[in-house]
Amino acid sequence: MTERLVVVGGDAAGMSAASQARRRRGAGDLSIVAFEQGRTTSYSACGIPYWISGTVEHRHELITRTPEQFRERQDIDMRTQSRVTGIDLGAQTVRVQPLDDESAPAADTYDEPFDQLVIATGSVPTRPPVPGIDAAGVYGVQTLDDGEELRRELASGRVRHVVVVGGGYIGLEIAEAAVIRGFDVTVVDLSATPVATFDPDVGADIAEAVRGLGIKLVLSDGVAGIETRDGRACSVRTASGRELPADLVVLGLGVRPNVALAADAGVPLGPSGGISVDLRMRTQVEGVWAAGDCVESWHRMSGQRMVVALGTHANKQGRVAGINIGGGYATFPGVIGTAVTKVCDLEVGRTGLSEREAAQAGFDFVTASCDSTTRAGYFPGARPIRVKMIAERRTGRLLGAQIVGREGAAKRIDVLATAIWNEMPVVEILSLDLSYAPPFSPVWDPVLIAARKAFDAVEVDIRTAPQ
Amino acid sequence: MTERLVVVGGDAAGMSAASQARRRRGAGDLSIVAFEQGRTTSYSACGIPYWISGTVEHRHELITRTPEQFRERQDIDMRTQSRVTGIDLGAQTVRVQPLDDESAPAADTYDEPFDQLVIATGSVPTRPPVPGIDAAGVYGVQTLDDGEELRRELASGRVRHVVVVGGGYIGLEIAEAAVIRGFDVTVVDLSATPVATFDPDVGADIAEAVRGLGIKLVLSDGVAGIETRDGRACSVRTASGRELPADLVVLGLGVRPNVALAADAGVPLGPSGGISVDLRMRTQVEGVWAAGDCVESWHRMSGQRMVVALGTHANKQGRVAGINIGGGYATFPGVIGTAVTKVCDLEVGRTGLSEREAAQAGFDFVTASCDSTTRAGYFPGARPIRVKMIAERRTGRLLGAQIVGREGAAKRIDVLATAIWNEMPVVEILSLDLSYAPPFSPVWDPVLIAARKAFDAVEVDIRTAPQ
Repeated sequence: MTERLVVVGGDAAGMSAASQARRRRGAGDLSIVAFEQGRTTSYSACGIPYWISGTVEHRHELITRTPEQFRERQDIDMRTQSRVTGIDLGAQTVRVQPLDDESAPAADTYDEPFDQLVIATGSVPTRPPVPGIDAAGVYGVQTLDDGEELRRELASGRVRHVVVVGGGYIGLEIAEAAVIRGFDVTVVDLSATPVATFDPDVGADIAEAVRGLGIKLVLSDGVAGIETRDGRACSVRTASGRELPADLVVLGLGVRPNVALAADAGVPLGPSGGISVDLRMRTQVEGVWAAGDCVESWHRMSGQRMVVALGTHANKQGRVAGINIGGGYATFPGVIGTAVTKVCDLEVGRTGLSEREAAQAGFDFVTASCDSTTRAGYFPGARPIRVKMIAERRTGRLLGAQIVGREGAAKRIDVLATAIWNEMPVVEILSLDLSYAPPFSPVWDPVLIAARKAFDAVEVDIRTAPQ
Repeated sequence: MTERLVVVGGDAAGMSAASQARRRRGAGDLSIVAFEQGRTTSYSACGIPYWISGTVEHRHELITRTPEQFRERQDIDMRTQSRVTGIDLGAQTVRVQPLDDESAPAADTYDEPFDQLVIATGSVPTRPPVPGIDAAGVYGVQTLDDGEELRRELASGRVRHVVVVGGGYIGLEIAEAAVIRGFDVTVVDLSATPVATFDPDVGADIAEAVRGLGIKLVLSDGVAGIETRDGRACSVRTASGRELPADLVVLGLGVRPNVALAADAGVPLGPSGGISVDLRMRTQVEGVWAAGDCVESWHRMSGQRMVVALGTHANKQGRVAGINIGGGYATFPGVIGTAVTKVCDLEVGRTGLSEREAAQAGFDFVTASCDSTTRAGYFPGARPIRVKMIAERRTGRLLGAQIVGREGAAKRIDVLATAIWNEMPVVEILSLDLSYAPPFSPVWDPVLIAARKAFDAVEVDIRTAPQ
């Protein structure tokens, strides 16, 4: 008999799962129905800021695979504009509400039966519970349809002042997009430096680059309320009493896992608030899988369960779920907190634990930084790069690293992500056989110099510490 | 009593050793005398091709530290234009010949006593034993003084045709430098594709890029002789009978370790022909150390001893010797064959074993390649990148990797160098938490896609192979 797989969510995680399951099992063996409430499948949410800035020209460039492609090439019954409103684990059905173009109900609900279920409901933007937060002119940037609306609004002619609430990755990317398009942009953030997942010293460089773009930064301050005029946002009031004119407010406070559907159905969540899954992406309910922004992952350094909303994890997790549903074997072995972004031509990357995270996890550590260049110092195009390392005090094991620099700097973080993954001590990292030629790095790659300095710090500490 | 350290060779390895020893021991405890036969210390030999092309403008940019700086800042008695002509291990002295600007004897020889000795005599260009090889107009590119002569020759107005013998890294870099300066350039190489340390499929891409620059390639052919006119090279005759006009011949056949001094003194060499050293860079003679291009290293994948002449190893090895001489503890844990170069805007990198090397070492393996882009496909500036992996057939362990692509491609080889160093199987590499943002990579980094493909190859093989 044909087994029935239902996938809830038509983006990275859900469709990776569907595709991998299909790769291993033909349509006669496994039927696949996938529901997506929007009109689009498998798009790059991370690309939205670049579409808004005009760096990416067309919406369709962000779409990896269309609903038609899933239907025709992979025999997946892809149903867009279909919102799943409930899961009945006992009856093994999901309730589906077809939507029209305005996301209003377009037909009666119906129940779709499943034998296996993948929950890939993603995340929703964090909305601070302040007055005015639901006014017109307040946007999240989560889906391609959000991006479309934001683009329309920015092109309407009625926007001059943009306030971005939250100075994380997405917040800064949107702020840069808006300033490129000529708007007056202010970013408000609770932390003393933007992108608080970086240490404050790196954050200070980010702040300088942001200000260099002409973006105003209001730091160590939160949003107390959004003032409206005729039901539309007109200004943002901060906790410290500032009044920031705002024809448009963009929420860049990060996201929380979209778990209402799972929780209501009785699929257990983990301590972090994401859906609890094992290494094979199985939830605690037989036959129910979950993947992507809505699940919690294991952080390999701190040992904590946490939600990390990133397209790269969503793709990997969806693949793992799909392989297992397809009868294969795969695991998702956790994350180490790697991330990268750029602000104008400033590149920043991080991996492992920041100083604050390392302290929270209970590590005793030393830090070291080195300033160098991306190519041999004498080679044209050599740009500055700073590598910072956090190493466990007694073992010298690398716990975290951050890179800040210009062109060619940040992607080097992957070397250190690989080193951390393998629990390398800094003394071994400095011996790594990394590539060298003058157009690519100094004879001592900046990563190696930083490891030398970190090792010096570990050694000095061993010599001088009381036994 | 003050211990006496003598260093033979004033470039990367020798001066790293001297500097590190000095860092740990003051002048009252350790006197340091360093001999260099040229006029320059601590320069980037790898930068010479870029100085010849004009990419790097001034000779002094290639010099990291001058003799004066060693003398004044580090209390190192740096003696340039001083050739060490012999080592007497019994008497613990070296014999020194002072030179004039033409490298001719400038004064009587003298003996310098030592308690500890560092041999850092580097390498010499391989010279094929063919008629005419010692004619005027035939150059190696080994030292800054070689580079100076080559520049003078190219600027003389009497050169039109340049033949580069050997299509390895240095050969191609010099060929590109000469073609940039407007000369007619031909590269002759014994292999079927240039840079034979890459697999032929990658080599074919390199050949295409080289030809695209307007450089002629004569492959699968060797040099049989150099014809001369009035004692100067005028053409190169190949083994297959070709006659290539050549006003200037540059030797790019690689180098061999410069071990005559050590061998004559009785310092044992290893099976590869380099000076035999242990992990701390001690030779088999008490009190005698060696580092840099003249020593043999351990290849961590094949287990073989081999000579790898690269500035990055020379610096690391010199540092290790110096720390140990200074009373500290450090080791050089071997190499895995990482290298990177560029030809025009084609970037190529390699690490671990090539297919041929893996077969020679006795490995049974599968290969896999993937073609992708350096950034998200829709992001401006996304350039092609191909990642090839060689994985052990039964264990899936990554044995080697090669990358070929355009801007931003090759330095990714360092991630795989770190993975190989840690003996990672490809199935674990594909789960690595590498950084992702559209300006930096597709959501599946090309490195991860290649690992997926390599793992597929390993899996298929396990399923289908006879038990």
